[in-house]
Amino acid sequence: MTLDPRAMTARGIAKAVNAGDVTAVAVTEAYLDRINVLEAQVQAFAYLDPKRALDEAAAVDAGAKGGLLSGVPLAVKDVIDSADMPTAYGSDAYTGFRPGRDATCMHLARMAGAVALGKTVTTEFATMSPGPTRNPFNPGHTPGGSSSGSAAALGAAMASVGFGTQTSGSTIRPSGFCGVAGFKASLNRIDRTGVKPLGESLDVVGAMARDVRDAALLAAVIAREPSWIVPEETPDLPAVALFLPEQEGPALEAGGQMAIDRVAALLAAPVAMATPAWWDGLGPAQDAVFGWEASASLAVERDLRAADVTEITRGFMARQALSTAEGHRAGCAARDAALADLDSLFGAAEILITPPASGEAPAGLGSTGNAAFNIRWTLLGTPSITVPAGLGPTGLPVAVQVVARPGQDALLLHAAAAIEDALRRAGHPARPEI
Amino acid sequence: MTLDPRAMTARGIAKAVNAGDVTAVAVTEAYLDRINVLEAQVQAFAYLDPKRALDEAAAVDAGAKGGLLSGVPLAVKDVIDSADMPTAYGSDAYTGFRPGRDATCMHLARMAGAVALGKTVTTEFATMSPGPTRNPFNPGHTPGGSSSGSAAALGAAMASVGFGTQTSGSTIRPSGFCGVAGFKASLNRIDRTGVKPLGESLDVVGAMARDVRDAALLAAVIAREPSWIVPEETPDLPAVALFLPEQEGPALEAGGQMAIDRVAALLAAPVAMATPAWWDGLGPAQDAVFGWEASASLAVERDLRAADVTEITRGFMARQALSTAEGHRAGCAARDAALADLDSLFGAAEILITPPASGEAPAGLGSTGNAAFNIRWTLLGTPSITVPAGLGPTGLPVAVQVVARPGQDALLLHAAAAIEDALRRAGHPARPEI
Repeated sequence: MTLDPRAMTARGIAKAVNAGDVTAVAVTEAYLDRINVLEAQVQAFAYLDPKRALDEAAAVDAGAKGGLLSGVPLAVKDVIDSADMPTAYGSDAYTGFRPGRDATCMHLARMAGAVALGKTVTTEFATMSPGPTRNPFNPGHTPGGSSSGSAAALGAAMASVGFGTQTSGSTIRPSGFCGVAGFKASLNRIDRTGVKPLGESLDVVGAMARDVRDAALLAAVIAREPSWIVPEETPDLPAVALFLPEQEGPALEAGGQMAIDRVAALLAAPVAMATPAWWDGLGPAQDAVFGWEASASLAVERDLRAADVTEITRGFMARQALSTAEGHRAGCAARDAALADLDSLFGAAEILITPPASGEAPAGLGSTGNAAFNIRWTLLGTPSITVPAGLGPTGLPVAVQVVARPGQDALLLHAAAAIEDALRRAGHPARPEI
Repeated sequence: MTLDPRAMTARGIAKAVNAGDVTAVAVTEAYLDRINVLEAQVQAFAYLDPKRALDEAAAVDAGAKGGLLSGVPLAVKDVIDSADMPTAYGSDAYTGFRPGRDATCMHLARMAGAVALGKTVTTEFATMSPGPTRNPFNPGHTPGGSSSGSAAALGAAMASVGFGTQTSGSTIRPSGFCGVAGFKASLNRIDRTGVKPLGESLDVVGAMARDVRDAALLAAVIAREPSWIVPEETPDLPAVALFLPEQEGPALEAGGQMAIDRVAALLAAPVAMATPAWWDGLGPAQDAVFGWEASASLAVERDLRAADVTEITRGFMARQALSTAEGHRAGCAARDAALADLDSLFGAAEILITPPASGEAPAGLGSTGNAAFNIRWTLLGTPSITVPAGLGPTGLPVAVQVVARPGQDALLLHAAAAIEDALRRAGHPARPEI
């Protein structure tokens, strides 16, 4: 097999390592070489010790084979605890912190043979204050966030698979901006032990990769759901509809519309769904739920460590502290009511195609972009995935978000792979070449 | 005020400390004196450094006054992270572990002025393998579990309030066995950051105390819900019904029946509700949900630390590893269906009176008793509280469990206080005197 990370898949790596056709060390070296070239510009990693990664790869080579992720280089968002690397949660308040054990998702990936390359940059506590990471395809543009480093590393082929998290739009949006497949499972299907809590009724671990099948493979391992694995042959596509929501916040831009149109042209006459009356209200509902939950999950940082966090995070925590239990209850009630009326949203469709963000990654590194196209789905707990859909008007990646009803994760992943295959066949590269 | 912990309440302590009538140090000394007398027999504490506790009390005395828990001695179950005391999760696999920060519940209690006395004994990882704690009223009997140490310490007046957790019956049952008020809030109303996860869709932090109003006060602080505080005057009692479930598992014993009868005699002709057809199935459903979630939350311990845990825990983890995603999904579906049909359970009642356990604490320390009267409520996420109801046939505490619909926490706490007041007026002491 070639050892150019731009041409490798996680499933291809695992197959080759398990067959003895290549070593995990050789694979890891190939990714480290690429990191060596690109990291100075991209700045995706919060912690990287090449020797430690190679030692881990050597242990995979020396161990029993057969794992679903044997030798697959993994990027781990730094809000996810690790036993043998520091975990700083993107904050000077936790520099060098050692939580003592791996988070369950990281542990399960390693048990399946994955090689953790290092920890990737997150916004501070996965909220608003950005890290140094740049969009790999234009260093003047944000990679999105909060899973900035994992998205950028995958876009640049500096890792094969990666972990994000999502409480508002932290997996779906950066995946779109960096041209990668980012999957947010249904709420409560992936264990969160060892992941820094932010919003307890919202947080989901994100499985990210360079294509849908690799993201599905990583998700299948950490959710312990073999049915999520997508075979190489193109799956049948279930009933699909387009959903361009009428909602408060930023309008869809040319790049976002281009991705939707590109996918719509490949599907057989998809219906465009109307926006349910309750849809827009889910935005403030998510904000209220998130605010109340974050004001508890970050209470220690707000009360005891405010001097060590950025001014943006201090402001965020001060605003969240104004949240109320009544607002949280009302937000949860809005969610429950919407979940009881999902037919108004999906109609006869099993899958919706909708934007993951307004458009291409915005210029500037001071903000990771707006989560307006993510927050309502996160509140609902629906599974969704970013499917790269080629390049936008300025040459940066664009994408669609594919969504299913809660619990329909396997259906979603298979459908997303079918859409990705159709895009490939139509000649839309997933991302710029670097 | 008297400084006999048997006669003190948390709200009385906070009022006196805030008024300057007593110091937090003097209160803490009174509890430490009692611990000094009783701890050798009860063995409630996993970690106790009297000097550290007195220093913390002195800091409360030196600081700003007015907290809801000023100077209130707090017992913290050792599955709850603490910054300045080790957190061992009841396991030799974590001896001396320092997680680096307080759990949110502990932090919020301390911010309200509580004085953490120490960490209390838990079964290993809050599952099956018991610690050394004995029932304070008969050392040959279990205190219940997994919140063994907090329940025993409160029963013996070695603490004023305490934290437990519940995934099956770990707060409600030991509270009943030790004659204390143990409150399990509705699911997702109390932040769990820093509490060792066990079952993500089941775990709730328990607020425990020597009477209902003190448990409500502690819960109000950590849930940030002032409406949960119960005034001293007896609240009005809403519509109440009795519920003696027909279900698999141990039958109600004489002590359990005695508590129900005692409360029923004080209420105005309460209706006895029939058992809904779906009720019994919630038992295996909870087992399936718990098993699948625990096999992820404890994956690191199962795969990497099995040599350091007890044989009971190894067996537990091996059994949980046989759980399936399909079982979890079916269990969650059974929960959803039951929640959609709660009227079959509650009828016209807002409050149900039901047993917290079969009866009095069983003899022996090898098991903490059976959770059959708890698991279905925990799966449903209903708020419930143990209300002590005097002594049973062998002189150990008996109790009732009072339950409301999800979200009706304030209503439940007020009703439970009214029931407790009625029991007091009828001459039923909450627990034996020691």
